[in-house]
Amino acid sequence: MKRLALKFGGTSVGTIEKIQKVAQLLKKRHKESNEIIVIISAMSGTTNELIKKSKTISKNFNSEELDVLLSAGEQISASLLTGALIELGLKARSWLGWQIPILTDKNYTFSKIIKIKTNEISNFISKKGIAVIAGFQGLSSDNRITTLGRGGSDLSAVAIAKFFKTDSCEIFTDVEGVHTTDPSMHSKAKKIDKISYEEMLEMASLGAKVMQPISVQESMINDTPIHVKSTFSGKTGTIITSEDKIDYKKVVTGITFSRNDAKLTLVGVVDKPGVAANIFEPLGKNNINIDMVIQNISSDGKETDVTFTIKREDLSKTLKLTEKNKKKLNYKKIIHDDKVSKVSIIGAGMIANPGVTYKMFRSLANEKINILAISTSEIKISVLVQEDMTRKAVKALHKTFGLD
Amino acid sequence: MKRLALKFGGTSVGTIEKIQKVAQLLKKRHKESNEIIVIISAMSGTTNELIKKSKTISKNFNSEELDVLLSAGEQISASLLTGALIELGLKARSWLGWQIPILTDKNYTFSKIIKIKTNEISNFISKKGIAVIAGFQGLSSDNRITTLGRGGSDLSAVAIAKFFKTDSCEIFTDVEGVHTTDPSMHSKAKKIDKISYEEMLEMASLGAKVMQPISVQESMINDTPIHVKSTFSGKTGTIITSEDKIDYKKVVTGITFSRNDAKLTLVGVVDKPGVAANIFEPLGKNNINIDMVIQNISSDGKETDVTFTIKREDLSKTLKLTEKNKKKLNYKKIIHDDKVSKVSIIGAGMIANPGVTYKMFRSLANEKINILAISTSEIKISVLVQEDMTRKAVKALHKTFGLD
Repeated sequence: MKRLALKFGGTSVGTIEKIQKVAQLLKKRHKESNEIIVIISAMSGTTNELIKKSKTISKNFNSEELDVLLSAGEQISASLLTGALIELGLKARSWLGWQIPILTDKNYTFSKIIKIKTNEISNFISKKGIAVIAGFQGLSSDNRITTLGRGGSDLSAVAIAKFFKTDSCEIFTDVEGVHTTDPSMHSKAKKIDKISYEEMLEMASLGAKVMQPISVQESMINDTPIHVKSTFSGKTGTIITSEDKIDYKKVVTGITFSRNDAKLTLVGVVDKPGVAANIFEPLGKNNINIDMVIQNISSDGKETDVTFTIKREDLSKTLKLTEKNKKKLNYKKIIHDDKVSKVSIIGAGMIANPGVTYKMFRSLANEKINILAISTSEIKISVLVQEDMTRKAVKALHKTFGLD
Repeated sequence: MKRLALKFGGTSVGTIEKIQKVAQLLKKRHKESNEIIVIISAMSGTTNELIKKSKTISKNFNSEELDVLLSAGEQISASLLTGALIELGLKARSWLGWQIPILTDKNYTFSKIIKIKTNEISNFISKKGIAVIAGFQGLSSDNRITTLGRGGSDLSAVAIAKFFKTDSCEIFTDVEGVHTTDPSMHSKAKKIDKISYEEMLEMASLGAKVMQPISVQESMINDTPIHVKSTFSGKTGTIITSEDKIDYKKVVTGITFSRNDAKLTLVGVVDKPGVAANIFEPLGKNNINIDMVIQNISSDGKETDVTFTIKREDLSKTLKLTEKNKKKLNYKKIIHDDKVSKVSIIGAGMIANPGVTYKMFRSLANEKINILAISTSEIKISVLVQEDMTRKAVKALHKTFGLD
């Protein structure tokens, strides 16, 4: 007897027909004498439609009420799936966040799960019932509905897997799993069978859209292995687990890219202590995230150029704030470029392989791709390149690191 | 300081723009130093859309899950209205059935309200907050969502008016109030200023669609006067109250009609005790409601014709059941007619005026309208006529009883 947490994303339950297919899939899994807890997202499109309604009323819609509104999406899909299971002759029941309850803190619209009460559902699934839990939602100590933010249903699944001590946590989605790079970018992209939490965290942060970084982080903290797979293909997907359970044959596991970066250079800044702080303080205070930073040392030691990257959407705000700050910063001019993108190689194997950096740069040089900036961590190297070089860079690195 | 229960129907909150208008209306009412409890229906169309989804999955969708599904409709409208109130600078909060809670029995999809906890909301409105309550929904003792059936939001409003001891209960809808007859049927229809619970109950049961009979019954039992009015016209509507608060100047208060009737006649039934029971027992067991019944006494005392009316949608089922029963009933033939309609006059004043029946029949005779069947109660007289005579009958009676 295995206990399973199975999570279905919005595209997997996007139509009534798909909900019925998911019910069939669950019937099959249930037959294999399993205790099943299902976590379900809102039907695709529902959440965006509700958000649109709220935005029409207020650009700054009250957070508590937004959570009441948005949680209706999972309430609808959970009851529909449960009805479909009952129609197939199965014992099934839906639970909303407040009914379990899934207790969270009071950070409405981005709450964190504190505790999940398990006795009622454990009892139900031990008696052959399939429990269907509305994802994304919880209950605050004020007896009000909370939601968990973007990718919240994955967070629900990971937390449920932890509190119910399930044998596995499967995330069903509309892709086959995690790939060595985006298949729409490079036809030679291959599905990764196993990836470590840390690698997946980097992949997710750097643009692989299969899971939100915060959910990967939670599964890492709890050491809850996740199996990401396609709902309707039936194939094995990607297992996200701890590093020690993976046999590393390759130095690099995957290649990601983002295309929403912009680069700024402050030319001729007077080189004295505190200058970086002066540049970045007003940006930080305005919620602008700085990604990469390069400071060239000037030949005469008096002036320097400071280059940094930000999200493209923050460019005009950043320019305004920096120009306003010109007197204090005392730079000569600003150069900016919003046609840049960040390409990264990720792999836990690179810790033991010091030649990776060199190999990466050589591979890009051979393709005549100019590197505009570099940032590294233990298990990833990111480079900034001209946007029109992105595909070329991804393909070259995919080949260089044996992923083709 | 007055305490008000204000209920808004689905058409009153059918679009975001209308929700914003309702919020404006509430702001105005709140300024008049009132404690306000709002009861809200789902945006028009939402409930039907959700029902359609459930029907695609199962013709017999699980009741408990259907309540989870349908209650999402009022959850959405309640949170949107509350957001709109907050946007106007008002203090407001939404409450779902389970949060208050509104305790009901376990008859999922048609539950009855048992008790409403009042302290949290009373405290909130006493501190200038506007409480927005999702109508139509409650909580069973199993901690599961229940709904109150058709017209359930009106039931919520009446119960809330009772438990919160409000000074008034206003039902905002898309019509100006209750009319002497359907304005789309007769241009001389007039709005009724005051009507008794009993009259309204007959009106509602006989086809006036402003309120469901069950809600009128509840308000009658609790003696909670209801003010039905148009959301956006701002005019005074119709007050439904106890008879002793009404000064009756007219014998007849209103004229209703239904057009979904069918008539059956069993010709040549052997006239002996128990024959009526034999005819109606199989129909009753199959949930077919019998409305009017006429039994003609035969000249020789051996045979009789039995005529009765049913809902038009039940006709084919009734024919089948009655034909199956032919041997036992021993009738000669069945005649049926689904082109009939029921026209009724309603008025508490007719108790003291015995000439009403005669006056009604004479009025119809003058118009050469044939009466096919008659049924009466203390405050109403119904006649069955050919469907194409409906408008003529309504107009004649409207004039005869001084309603023009």
